[in-house]
Amino acid sequence: MRLKFSKMHGLGNDFVLLDGISQRINLSRDKIRRLADRRAGIGCDQVLVVEAPRNPDADFRYRIYNADGGEVENCGNGARCFARFVRERRLTGKDRLGVETAAGLLHLTLLDDNSVSVNMGAPVLEPADIPFAAEHRADTYPLEVDGEVFTIGAISMGNPHAVLLVDDVEKAPVETLGPKIERHTHFPQRVNVGFLQIESPDQVRLRVFERGVGETRACGTGACAAVVFARLCDLVDEEVKVRLPGGALTIHWSGPGQAVTMAGPATTVYHGHINL
Amino acid sequence: MRLKFSKMHGLGNDFVLLDGISQRINLSRDKIRRLADRRAGIGCDQVLVVEAPRNPDADFRYRIYNADGGEVENCGNGARCFARFVRERRLTGKDRLGVETAAGLLHLTLLDDNSVSVNMGAPVLEPADIPFAAEHRADTYPLEVDGEVFTIGAISMGNPHAVLLVDDVEKAPVETLGPKIERHTHFPQRVNVGFLQIESPDQVRLRVFERGVGETRACGTGACAAVVFARLCDLVDEEVKVRLPGGALTIHWSGPGQAVTMAGPATTVYHGHINL
Repeated sequence: MRLKFSKMHGLGNDFVLLDGISQRINLSRDKIRRLADRRAGIGCDQVLVVEAPRNPDADFRYRIYNADGGEVENCGNGARCFARFVRERRLTGKDRLGVETAAGLLHLTLLDDNSVSVNMGAPVLEPADIPFAAEHRADTYPLEVDGEVFTIGAISMGNPHAVLLVDDVEKAPVETLGPKIERHTHFPQRVNVGFLQIESPDQVRLRVFERGVGETRACGTGACAAVVFARLCDLVDEEVKVRLPGGALTIHWSGPGQAVTMAGPATTVYHGHINL
Repeated sequence: MRLKFSKMHGLGNDFVLLDGISQRINLSRDKIRRLADRRAGIGCDQVLVVEAPRNPDADFRYRIYNADGGEVENCGNGARCFARFVRERRLTGKDRLGVETAAGLLHLTLLDDNSVSVNMGAPVLEPADIPFAAEHRADTYPLEVDGEVFTIGAISMGNPHAVLLVDDVEKAPVETLGPKIERHTHFPQRVNVGFLQIESPDQVRLRVFERGVGETRACGTGACAAVVFARLCDLVDEEVKVRLPGGALTIHWSGPGQAVTMAGPATTVYHGHINL
């Protein structure tokens, strides 16, 4: 099987994108692992396959696979790369795209500066739906870790997030406290942990310890959850620049019930073809 | 600048190969770093650029650059990839190739099974030329490290190697003893350190702590030096299979004054093009 592909990245989170519309693609778990291998293959964090939609309201459908071959629900960085890919490969001429993903229908807009805006849906704030063990919904919750009580926010953006305020993200105990909160008994499906520093009402800094992964350079849903938490605490404006180790995202949220939008870059690195 | 490239590897040591004959290539240090970046670029250990020869006895010339942009002298894994690349890209129809490298003229042979044999030249055994601080040339030398005396071989294959016999490479103190010998005062230009286990007269196992790098998956010159040392000690035959963590090389050496040949695989992973 000879496959054309593009290598892209969003804030350093890198993808191999495959056009499954103009070429027939049948990827076993083993082939995905081979594509993702950074020495014996192309190398990437995730493989994204674009397909024709099943849902008549969508323009495309895509599926994302981790380097281990397992399918993942969604990924904001991948969604932005997808939007640039279908335009560059001339699979569409549209600026606004609806795309079916494993996490539901996603709406994307290509912006003039080649960045992409993604409608991430409304945040889930009900503890049982996050899931998080709390009797009532609140903006902040106390969480005891090793006898010390931390104040956190708990929000789902399709995946669960805990957010903590810190004075200085550089000095935040991401590697030590991150894994303890990730596996805290109050989060039965574990949780992503964001360490958030407010720089001004329109700019914050964030480091995220991702569930099952460790600290990453840029977590899109983590940036959304952090801004939702900061807005609930009345610390930031509706539009906030979130500075992550891998680069910046612009998050917009007007309040409960409303969708969060995330805008950020998608970079095409090169195009290639491989025999699998 | 739009560049066509091939991604290849030899025993997991991976390369971006560029044809500088049919396309004009002008690589700054910064551009090499970008090519080698595993997330924002193509990703590789080294970049290899094929050029027309200056020496009339050679078919080609190549230059190899590390991921940091600095030029390196030579690399056995890169030489094998080079030979397959020029055949696959139809830059030559020959099976035997002479190629100019920063370390001198190299002779390569493409074998029927797609592996490549490289004439690595004669080993240098004179201590002053390795360089190694010893009064007389010998097959083995005592070397004191932290009060303990080890028996080593000292050989140059264009780069200096120390070789130690061990009972079991799996348990060899590569990470602790390796760096101490690498920087031992008796090796004024530092040294690569090989830990060698003899399995039979025609098969050995080897782990190499590379100078300035640490343990690697497959060091071609290290495999040559190890077999030279084992032959000098009369422990192996003329042709020996060397099992490294990344795979196997076949080394042939008939004795002092003779050239060492190294045969092993070169794998094409994919072809691509990138705008730099």
